[in-house]
Amino acid sequence: MPEKDLRVGVIGVGMMGADHAERVVNRVAGARLVAVSDPDTARAADLAAAFDGVRSVGDPLDLIADPEVDAVVVASPGFVHEEQVLACLEHGKYALCEKPLTMDSESSLRLVEAEAKGGRPLVQVGFMRRFDPEYAQMKSMLDSGQLGRTLLLHNTHRNKTVPDSFRSEMIVRDSLVHEVDVARFIFGEEITEITVLAGTPTGAAAEGVLDPQVSLFRMAGGGLVTSEVFVNCQVGYEVRCEAVAERGTVTAGRNSTGIYSTVSDENGGYWGGQVPPDFRVRFARAYDLEVQAWVDASRRGEVVGPTSWDGYAATAVCTAGMEALATGRPVRVDLADRAAVLGGVG
Amino acid sequence: MPEKDLRVGVIGVGMMGADHAERVVNRVAGARLVAVSDPDTARAADLAAAFDGVRSVGDPLDLIADPEVDAVVVASPGFVHEEQVLACLEHGKYALCEKPLTMDSESSLRLVEAEAKGGRPLVQVGFMRRFDPEYAQMKSMLDSGQLGRTLLLHNTHRNKTVPDSFRSEMIVRDSLVHEVDVARFIFGEEITEITVLAGTPTGAAAEGVLDPQVSLFRMAGGGLVTSEVFVNCQVGYEVRCEAVAERGTVTAGRNSTGIYSTVSDENGGYWGGQVPPDFRVRFARAYDLEVQAWVDASRRGEVVGPTSWDGYAATAVCTAGMEALATGRPVRVDLADRAAVLGGVG
Amino acid sequence: MPEKDLRVGVIGVGMMGADHAERVVNRVAGARLVAVSDPDTARAADLAAAFDGVRSVGDPLDLIADPEVDAVVVASPGFVHEEQVLACLEHGKYALCEKPLTMDSESSLRLVEAEAKGGRPLVQVGFMRRFDPEYAQMKSMLDSGQLGRTLLLHNTHRNKTVPDSFRSEMIVRDSLVHEVDVARFIFGEEITEITVLAGTPTGAAAEGVLDPQVSLFRMAGGGLVTSEVFVNCQVGYEVRCEAVAERGTVTAGRNSTGIYSTVSDENGGYWGGQVPPDFRVRFARAYDLEVQAWVDASRRGEVVGPTSWDGYAATAVCTAGMEALATGRPVRVDLADRAAVLGGVG
Amino acid sequence: MPEKDLRVGVIGVGMMGADHAERVVNRVAGARLVAVSDPDTARAADLAAAFDGVRSVGDPLDLIADPEVDAVVVASPGFVHEEQVLACLEHGKYALCEKPLTMDSESSLRLVEAEAKGGRPLVQVGFMRRFDPEYAQMKSMLDSGQLGRTLLLHNTHRNKTVPDSFRSEMIVRDSLVHEVDVARFIFGEEITEITVLAGTPTGAAAEGVLDPQVSLFRMAGGGLVTSEVFVNCQVGYEVRCEAVAERGTVTAGRNSTGIYSTVSDENGGYWGGQVPPDFRVRFARAYDLEVQAWVDASRRGEVVGPTSWDGYAATAVCTAGMEALATGRPVRVDLADRAAVLGGVG
Repeated sequence: MPEKDLRVGVIGVGMMGADHAERVVNRVAGARLVAVSDPDTARAADLAAAFDGVRSVGDPLDLIADPEVDAVVVASPGFVHEEQVLACLEHGKYALCEKPLTMDSESSLRLVEAEAKGGRPLVQVGFMRRFDPEYAQMKSMLDSGQLGRTLLLHNTHRNKTVPDSFRSEMIVRDSLVHEVDVARFIFGEEITEITVLAGTPTGAAAEGVLDPQVSLFRMAGGGLVTSEVFVNCQVGYEVRCEAVAERGTVTAGRNSTGIYSTVSDENGGYWGGQVPPDFRVRFARAYDLEVQAWVDASRRGEVVGPTSWDGYAATAVCTAGMEALATGRPVRVDLADRAAVLGGVG
Repeated sequence: MPEKDLRVGVIGVGMMGADHAERVVNRVAGARLVAVSDPDTARAADLAAAFDGVRSVGDPLDLIADPEVDAVVVASPGFVHEEQVLACLEHGKYALCEKPLTMDSESSLRLVEAEAKGGRPLVQVGFMRRFDPEYAQMKSMLDSGQLGRTLLLHNTHRNKTVPDSFRSEMIVRDSLVHEVDVARFIFGEEITEITVLAGTPTGAAAEGVLDPQVSLFRMAGGGLVTSEVFVNCQVGYEVRCEAVAERGTVTAGRNSTGIYSTVSDENGGYWGGQVPPDFRVRFARAYDLEVQAWVDASRRGEVVGPTSWDGYAATAVCTAGMEALATGRPVRVDLADRAAVLGGVG
Repeated sequence: MPEKDLRVGVIGVGMMGADHAERVVNRVAGARLVAVSDPDTARAADLAAAFDGVRSVGDPLDLIADPEVDAVVVASPGFVHEEQVLACLEHGKYALCEKPLTMDSESSLRLVEAEAKGGRPLVQVGFMRRFDPEYAQMKSMLDSGQLGRTLLLHNTHRNKTVPDSFRSEMIVRDSLVHEVDVARFIFGEEITEITVLAGTPTGAAAEGVLDPQVSLFRMAGGGLVTSEVFVNCQVGYEVRCEAVAERGTVTAGRNSTGIYSTVSDENGGYWGGQVPPDFRVRFARAYDLEVQAWVDASRRGEVVGPTSWDGYAATAVCTAGMEALATGRPVRVDLADRAAVLGGVG
Repeated sequence: MPEKDLRVGVIGVGMMGADHAERVVNRVAGARLVAVSDPDTARAADLAAAFDGVRSVGDPLDLIADPEVDAVVVASPGFVHEEQVLACLEHGKYALCEKPLTMDSESSLRLVEAEAKGGRPLVQVGFMRRFDPEYAQMKSMLDSGQLGRTLLLHNTHRNKTVPDSFRSEMIVRDSLVHEVDVARFIFGEEITEITVLAGTPTGAAAEGVLDPQVSLFRMAGGGLVTSEVFVNCQVGYEVRCEAVAERGTVTAGRNSTGIYSTVSDENGGYWGGQVPPDFRVRFARAYDLEVQAWVDASRRGEVVGPTSWDGYAATAVCTAGMEALATGRPVRVDLADRAAVLGGVG
């Protein structure tokens, strides 16, 4: 590992970007936050002022071009990802791009192609579940072969609430996208077909929003994946994945973390624990490990996490998923030819 | 309750029927097993001989017609259910018919019509999950309305192994039928559409058998139900049901005492279950087993539980314990000489 | 097993005795409740009237002497146990005596001696934990020797609340007595020394009552036992026992189905429990409840369980399901018109 | 937070020290490893060579005196802690000293006095459980008052195995010392009396080693604490703490972390997870948080973790505990007058 710290810039300092900025400063070894950028320049300036030696930069493309910046966290809204990640590729900067990679599969594919053309991997996509210790353990136990082949995956993805602006298609594109990546990660295969069904929606959802949704993926190797996504479940953030293999099962996220207590109220006595209120609590450790892994790999000149191809494939599945939700029917997922697109890269 | 015991006959004494026969004799109050019948007459005779006052009857229809029989457990193979249950209806006998009621919906409907024509209900079908304390608790918690409307149900149904003769369709007709009843029971509605999918089968399944299978039901009221049935899972028998409602979830069969739920209140979201209010709830089963064991032993002229020596020794320790409490110091416990006191008894 | 039912009398029909009386009538095979007795003669008469063929007897000694009574449940207060159990011994009646056997060790020993003199065992003491499936499993796992010798036992015994009349000594004599029996049962040895300590009491205890208490037993073979008894814990009834052996631990009462254990093998250490091998184990209780409910309903001339319509509807769904499996497509389920078919029945 | 990284030296690069060195390099923000020292100079040189810019220093006192070193991790054997921590105090260096602070209470008190005389806090003791997220959550839930006063604490501390050189007294001084600190941390009070009992030892312990041990502490405010320490339990590393308060309980370390699986072997099917093999796995997160907190506080010129007084008090309790183990009797713990010793510091 080189002695020099990685100099990191963060684009977009909303909830997620500000969280990453603070992480780079306080909990990651070998990195130094040097610049932030946000259309809300006051917010960017405030964040920069909270730390020593951090500049606020008006134009995100200037931040990317800055020779004092080695690597960029792209935490801006999805519709500007394409332009910003392309700029990172052009300037040879390592990019950790929050999901979704871009808004549709064509633009995602363009990024994959641009990176491949550059001849060396630079992009990691923010699918942080791969860094969650339980998901990683599950993957490793399944890959060990001790349980035989993996046959089924059952995902549960629940948020306490979402804003009314979070529409039915966003449940596919912004929420289900995590299950899409988990399925591809666990099976190590592409998804070939997706069905998305909605029943009567919960009364807690905004008018017209189809929540909860139940999805079904068929994997290239014949596996099946069910996913429940319920973004107004009222309880808290609950993410669980049960893999069913030929000789056993493995479950990550079985609500087993944190203290266990027994308590009493006027209605009786209870045992149990607290459901985390949101993903920052549940995946705190995963985010730390993700950013540390990205920093370490960038310092070594490598990309180790989910690649731009992973980002493209997930976007393509979700694009098909939005059609499946609209029609209620299975939709085939057709990906570009991976070997042809990537050549020797990735 | 009348003082007279119910006189029960059992038709079919394979695994399930023999189990029910033994249950009527040994663990059920107010019933008396009087007759059994099976095409394998030797097996029927052996079973009858194992108990006092039980006859083996060659023709199951004779057993049903017998005026000494008040009620009949129909545990024969499904393809003779129609004839036998019709005979029960004809003779006005109560019937507990193992699932499936019959082999197809036409014949089942004929039974429903025949019973309705008779003007009084006589038939109970063997969907025993409705009697499982956790399923019953789940139903009751959902019906209370405290979690809002029920939106989704996720079933898991796994058997360790099945014989090679258990084919793909039987996974639907003999296994999934339980999830069908559970869905109808929990929602209190009919199912309007069913999808059943199979991926690559497990290597442990017989040639040509599609196992595991994933099913999807649409309920009349708009609810959705997913079910995994995996009858060669190699691990054991695992049956689980998670209901997702508007403000929380309830799960039966999660390796916890009583139902497991997630709920929300003004302070946050919680997972867990209920601590029993008193010992009668916690030890209900123990008390039943204790008294049954005492009755059985007394009828055999024996004592099998904790003896008077056990009672004496416990009292002696507690007497010392009260002194220990008063003094805060260890107190020796000195018991009488057991052999001298008991002589040959106990 | 003789065909004749055991004729049972119950002395003392407070909470525990009434519970036992109801159990003998409704959930125990081979027994018949014939008489009850209580100083509160109105309560005894009410209970007798609630069942067929049960008499209320004024003097408990008359109940014991009655030749129509084969066996007696002694659920009266502890201070009359000695006289009543002695009467049972004199008349050769089987006695199930609630704990404590008597109020002090001298009187308990007199009972042991009297029974021994009679030459045949007649007394069972109500330490029901020995019949709890988890305690029984724990004992059996420890006795199997697979974990080596048992070294320590940690008991937890919590009640939600007790009346203010429940004093410090009663926490020893009436509550801790269960842990005393559990320690003797699990180790199969006598206790040689006891220490009982109390710290600052909970504010929920009555003035002057030392609650909670922590006890320590030394076993004859060198084992140690810790016990917490906390009878005003406010939450509910929680009873747990963790045995620590040379190569693993076993816990009963840990809010899990069946015992929980930690074990070691050549690959590492594991926590968890056993998945039941088949449905008869998992649904043993459900089957018992099902058949008991069927017998009870039949005796009342009713049907309470899943009806023939339920059987028909399930069959119809599965018939559709088999088509769905064959085609991979959703299949509509069309049921007959329920009201038209059933008319006034079901 | 100053922009400059904290320059850290590590003394003692056995298992624990090497672990801390790697942590400072790879997982801690704001720190830089600059020097290591160990009597085994080859091992120190190897470790230094594994990282960029790290020197190996022969004499640990030279490392402490080095003006290029801002702060020191003292991970050497306990018997040299006094000399090395005193040197840190003399040179005004922040010290993170592994437990035990020193080998007896007199020497620990001398350190407390020396630090107090210097007028500013410099020493943090390595009681990492305070940084474990579950212990911290437990402390915070109890301190919130929602469960009323804390009455009892039950600790379980099990290691898979220890070397034969780990003797009975070390079980008190090196293992139980963690429970001593946990009790003081949770109650926020000193321990006034300690009892340590041993029964028949496990066959897995070395000849003459009393393992397992059961301890009892009385807290200054009247609380009681039980602790099991079993260092040859064969299963794995299991550390658990259950606090019993007036209206509920809280448990940390209930074997709930990591993936949950069901697996099958020739003996049956099991549910559960893996017991961590050692403390580095179980407390990985706690160690990271501990060292990060120490680095952050040192950069701000503060001490936030367990102080030298905490180290002294724990040593004093364990010194009494070794006498208690030898005599089998309760031993009073007499501490120096805190206010007098500390003056305005700590």
